[in-house]
Amino acid sequence: MSKENAISPTRQEDYPEWYQQVIKAADMAEASGVRGCMVIKPWGYGIWENIQRDLNDRIKATGHQNAYFPLFIPLSFLEKEATHVEGFAKECAVVTHHRLELKEGRLVPTGELEEPLIVRPTSETIIGDSFSRWVESYRDLPLLINQWANIVRWEMRPRIFLRTTEFLWQEGHTVHATEEEALKETLQMLHVYQRFMEDVLALPVIVGEKSPGERFPGAENTFCLEAMMQDRKAIQAGTSHYLGQNFAKASNIKFNNKDGQTEYAYTTSWGVTTRLIGGMIMCHGDDDGLRLPPRVATHQAVIIPFIPKEELRDEVMAYARALAAELEKLTFFDMKLSVYIDGRDRRGGEKNWEWIKKGVPLRIEVGPREMTSSTMALSRRDRPHKEKITVSRDEITKVPQILEEIQKNYFEQAKAFRDQHICKDIKTFEELKAYFTPRNSEKPEIHGGFVLAKWCGDKETESLLDELKVTIRCLPLEQSGTEGKCVLTGRPARIDAIFAKSY
Amino acid sequence: MSKENAISPTRQEDYPEWYQQVIKAADMAEASGVRGCMVIKPWGYGIWENIQRDLNDRIKATGHQNAYFPLFIPLSFLEKEATHVEGFAKECAVVTHHRLELKEGRLVPTGELEEPLIVRPTSETIIGDSFSRWVESYRDLPLLINQWANIVRWEMRPRIFLRTTEFLWQEGHTVHATEEEALKETLQMLHVYQRFMEDVLALPVIVGEKSPGERFPGAENTFCLEAMMQDRKAIQAGTSHYLGQNFAKASNIKFNNKDGQTEYAYTTSWGVTTRLIGGMIMCHGDDDGLRLPPRVATHQAVIIPFIPKEELRDEVMAYARALAAELEKLTFFDMKLSVYIDGRDRRGGEKNWEWIKKGVPLRIEVGPREMTSSTMALSRRDRPHKEKITVSRDEITKVPQILEEIQKNYFEQAKAFRDQHICKDIKTFEELKAYFTPRNSEKPEIHGGFVLAKWCGDKETESLLDELKVTIRCLPLEQSGTEGKCVLTGRPARIDAIFAKSY
Repeated sequence: MSKENAISPTRQEDYPEWYQQVIKAADMAEASGVRGCMVIKPWGYGIWENIQRDLNDRIKATGHQNAYFPLFIPLSFLEKEATHVEGFAKECAVVTHHRLELKEGRLVPTGELEEPLIVRPTSETIIGDSFSRWVESYRDLPLLINQWANIVRWEMRPRIFLRTTEFLWQEGHTVHATEEEALKETLQMLHVYQRFMEDVLALPVIVGEKSPGERFPGAENTFCLEAMMQDRKAIQAGTSHYLGQNFAKASNIKFNNKDGQTEYAYTTSWGVTTRLIGGMIMCHGDDDGLRLPPRVATHQAVIIPFIPKEELRDEVMAYARALAAELEKLTFFDMKLSVYIDGRDRRGGEKNWEWIKKGVPLRIEVGPREMTSSTMALSRRDRPHKEKITVSRDEITKVPQILEEIQKNYFEQAKAFRDQHICKDIKTFEELKAYFTPRNSEKPEIHGGFVLAKWCGDKETESLLDELKVTIRCLPLEQSGTEGKCVLTGRPARIDAIFAKSY
Repeated sequence: MSKENAISPTRQEDYPEWYQQVIKAADMAEASGVRGCMVIKPWGYGIWENIQRDLNDRIKATGHQNAYFPLFIPLSFLEKEATHVEGFAKECAVVTHHRLELKEGRLVPTGELEEPLIVRPTSETIIGDSFSRWVESYRDLPLLINQWANIVRWEMRPRIFLRTTEFLWQEGHTVHATEEEALKETLQMLHVYQRFMEDVLALPVIVGEKSPGERFPGAENTFCLEAMMQDRKAIQAGTSHYLGQNFAKASNIKFNNKDGQTEYAYTTSWGVTTRLIGGMIMCHGDDDGLRLPPRVATHQAVIIPFIPKEELRDEVMAYARALAAELEKLTFFDMKLSVYIDGRDRRGGEKNWEWIKKGVPLRIEVGPREMTSSTMALSRRDRPHKEKITVSRDEITKVPQILEEIQKNYFEQAKAFRDQHICKDIKTFEELKAYFTPRNSEKPEIHGGFVLAKWCGDKETESLLDELKVTIRCLPLEQSGTEGKCVLTGRPARIDAIFAKSY
């Protein structure tokens, strides 16, 4: 490959198209024959498997157990919580028939259901139905359940990983005896997500509370994690909801308290989705493709054997395998290294570029020269792709440290970029407007970034942001507490809020 | 609990009802608010997680990669393979609308789809659509993909784990350049399943080929694994299909061969489902509940602290925790032990019975007496529940060996039972009929068992079995090759076949 960058267009040239091209170049996913639904290919699914493994351990370590609930929700269940059904009605896939029959040469749906079934857009109501049977006494509480599942929300403007009709997620659902405990759980899981995103995905996040206009339908409070992408837009990377007694009342989840009285329980729910993969691409990717944080990469290192003559194949491959075996005995962040030997019959340069685009943290080239000198040639994905350092084979023990450095670098780079693009000096709506106006009319995606400013907290004022295509992303948990003026209305205001464009 | 057995009715009294009661007593799963769909509770889902983990490793070790394909299949995709759609048409959940709207006070489906979508009853056609894009040259082959997913087949007579409208499974889908390679793959995966079922689930299976009447719709050959339950009926525990070029033609999966010519590829598919959990219950359970093979149990051992006085709680719990920590350092079959300390404030006898019903392989009781003498009291689930052996704490290192023994015992017991109930002496249809006639008219489920007899291979003759409610379960891979008389027609016959009632 002779051109300067592997991905065309570059991020500067056309960010949305760059994103699609990275996914294609890294062979992560593709559109399917079903509108809005994606196929997650092995390289993308391997990332999801690593996300699942790591996050699953964290969810279990905090006392939750996995279970599985039905894909289908009877329409009557969904209707039990009025705000909830209103929030999801416009994006529900509805099953109305349970068989197909040949009629006049055409296969048509028959066996109409008495009650339509909704393919779960979230599972509060179907899980609530079980919980109402599982919970009887305060002794049954807290009930701490998690589910890994597929979800369907009909999407009119699908975008791979970011907004798809079907996506994969985990959804936690818990039941508590008191408001205090339920709120504590909601915040605990928010922080579990934060640790996971920052430590494993290298994704710096701002944790905060959603404004009323952005809450989950049916929740009392929604907490969220917001990350900045390289086009300075925000992505909601995860949410944790305090549901109060709303769903307990809708699903009749009651318990006998210590005084022998029956009361409604308090519930929470929280989830992250395959959208996280999209967030990682947009946060870490560069003009050569994906850059995978080592902790979430399918393979931390790939060995590319250089075989100038066919008669040297066995010898070089044996050297590569010995190296791989040694590497796989090493650990980094308590994880075993996974190493892939790319022994395919292709040119070395072609393979090298393929792995750059796929974002493998470390490429190791070995050939006759390295064998003779007992060395290996290392290329790090966080360095310019032409940089190749030949080191002694003994230095293999330093690989974990290199991977830890790469992991740290990605996080630091993302954090520096974000902090550089959070403006804290905006005081008026006019300034806000200017900040969010594209610098270049041909590239509407380039604008200021995030704004941290004061907000009066009045729900009605949120609509003022519509013309800017901006929303309040969150009210950070960390509040300054100082008095100021609302950036939307000029009224006295105490609340710190993050304003941004978003995915 | 004072009665003799924890489960009522016993297996002898009413096997189908015993099965339901074991699931309830072990708290594994329950019916949901959606007809035919089950809720898999934590104790049942933990087993599925262990099945996934172990089988996933085996699938990856044989070179397959995981990916994820859409839940929905356009009707037109399903129609591409005529036998296939005919096989599944009667059990398809059909999505016809993509939103809900309030009309005259009622929420009704709107946004009718131009083309109905089928919730996947299996994924050959939707995966084939992707494969037709992924495969171009012989260099892209073999393509070895696996998916873990939920499946929907509308079930008129649901039975928890065994036949449910929604179930969980893994489905492998592979593409090959030659018939020979594809057949080799089909058999390879059959043997991967066999090793997994026998070694991990302790489920002895007969591997064989399905008769034409029992093939997967659209397959050239279906291979299967058949296990005997304690009511002597068969369960199909898994299948592996050689699909020939049928689905390659339906989905247009073509490749350029080494001679530069374009030809259709050869495909396979293979899967096992949550039905395996039902099979394990019915194979290993006894009149006290579930008996879990250690390799698939959520916890291999449970420690039940005996706390006669509240002031001793801390001390006893500390002893239990120290014991658990030591146990969790041990391995058996290359697995780490998982130990649960049941510190709940309930009577010891109540807890003990709960774990018997849940089928935990090993129960360990510790209290002041054991602390003083530095011992622990062991009860094995494969022994009478009153048997309790007090051993020195130092003998903790023998726990892996005990677990390996339990694992082996379950397999040996199941195999002995099965071998005892395979009749090889039946020569005529009259004898066959007598064998499958219930011994006791009040208990239709008690009959002979499996019959290994000769069959002429004529598809038409299979329907003779209908009146007996018996089917040919498989033609075992291991064939004697001897000449005999067909048990159905008396004609000369060479094929050995297994005849049985089945789930």
